Amino acid sequence: MGAGGTTRQKMLVGGVELLRERGPAGVTIDAVLARTRTPRGSVYHHFPGGRQQIVGEALEMSGSAISAIIQESAQDGPASAFAHLIAFWKKLLRENDFEAGCPVVAVAIAGSAQDDHRDRAREIIGGWLGTIADSLVRTGATPARARTLATLVVSSVEGAVVLCRTTRSTAPLDDVAGELRHLFADLDRRPAE
Amino acid sequence: MGAGGTTRQKMLVGGVELLRERGPAGVTIDAVLARTRTPRGSVYHHFPGGRQQIVGEALEMSGSAISAIIQESAQDGPASAFAHLIAFWKKLLRENDFEAGCPVVAVAIAGSAQDDHRDRAREIIGGWLGTIADSLVRTGATPARARTLATLVVSSVEGAVVLCRTTRSTAPLDDVAGELRHLFADLDRRPAE
Repeated sequence: MGAGGTTRQKMLVGGVELLRERGPAGVTIDAVLARTRTPRGSVYHHFPGGRQQIVGEALEMSGSAISAIIQESAQDGPASAFAHLIAFWKKLLRENDFEAGCPVVAVAIAGSAQDDHRDRAREIIGGWLGTIADSLVRTGATPARARTLATLVVSSVEGAVVLCRTTRSTAPLDDVAGELRHLFADLDRRPAE
Repeated sequence: MGAGGTTRQKMLVGGVELLRERGPAGVTIDAVLARTRTPRGSVYHHFPGGRQQIVGEALEMSGSAISAIIQESAQDGPASAFAHLIAFWKKLLRENDFEAGCPVVAVAIAGSAQDDHRDRAREIIGGWLGTIADSLVRTGATPARARTLATLVVSSVEGAVVLCRTTRSTAPLDDVAGELRHLFADLDRRPAE
């Protein structure tokens, strides 16, 4: 049970890595086995649903992790400009040598041949937008403005992750973080309309 | 030559579409032939370099188109908040039923198995950032601030395109456009630091 748990966990982490680097189409049984150096028999023992089960569980695992970081970031209030979220992405990009992006986005925009978990990924991203908008309403923004600002935060951070991969540097995330700090400092000084 | 030009052009447009929907790995000879209903013999007649030549030319074609729109948008000045670029993406997303993203980003973040044109894609994105930053400097921003604002514009628009695909709606682009308008209107009132 202990060793089984370890193999299962290792395969799931491999699934998350493949999802980040290649999207759901890249999470094949062969790729998971090659990356995690596990015997072929382990797959259907631990994941009787095959690769779709691995994609689904990898999505839940990585989605929950990012949701928790966004919740933590949102609790700090807008003045922190989602510093935890920015720091999380910078660390992850450095660790994977700028080869990996957001696993939840990868599932959400997958083509129709890979759409088993697309609705769930969209739901997770909707949750991120809701968490951020709620935190902005608590600090005085109208619900309408909070919603557009939440969209700006998620869009600019996700877009900056792509630019970081493009430039192989964390500078785009720093640039976006700086601009978000400006914006939220202004909102603090002047109540959001 | 006339008909040949037409077949060649049709195959290239098919290549751009596949690039947008599936990234460079999805631009296979079979996929281009299936989509454009052209005979197999046409491929090596028009593209002796095979699929890598199609990817390369599709990247140049779509990259130039987006670069031209960004230049047009930048000429209108920051108060327009890159309205042409936003309108271009909204139209494209509606036309392709939210199934397609940015072809240049798709090449720029492709895995190492698909990296033949990655440097060129990164160069094109660097050009977009430069065009936007230059236009902001012309309207009074310092070069440093112009650079971080350009990163925010490209990040938030690229990220919003992803959220549009996720929500199957153009609302995220409208939300980001609204926030960029706020931001640039403020810069007009108070000189950018």
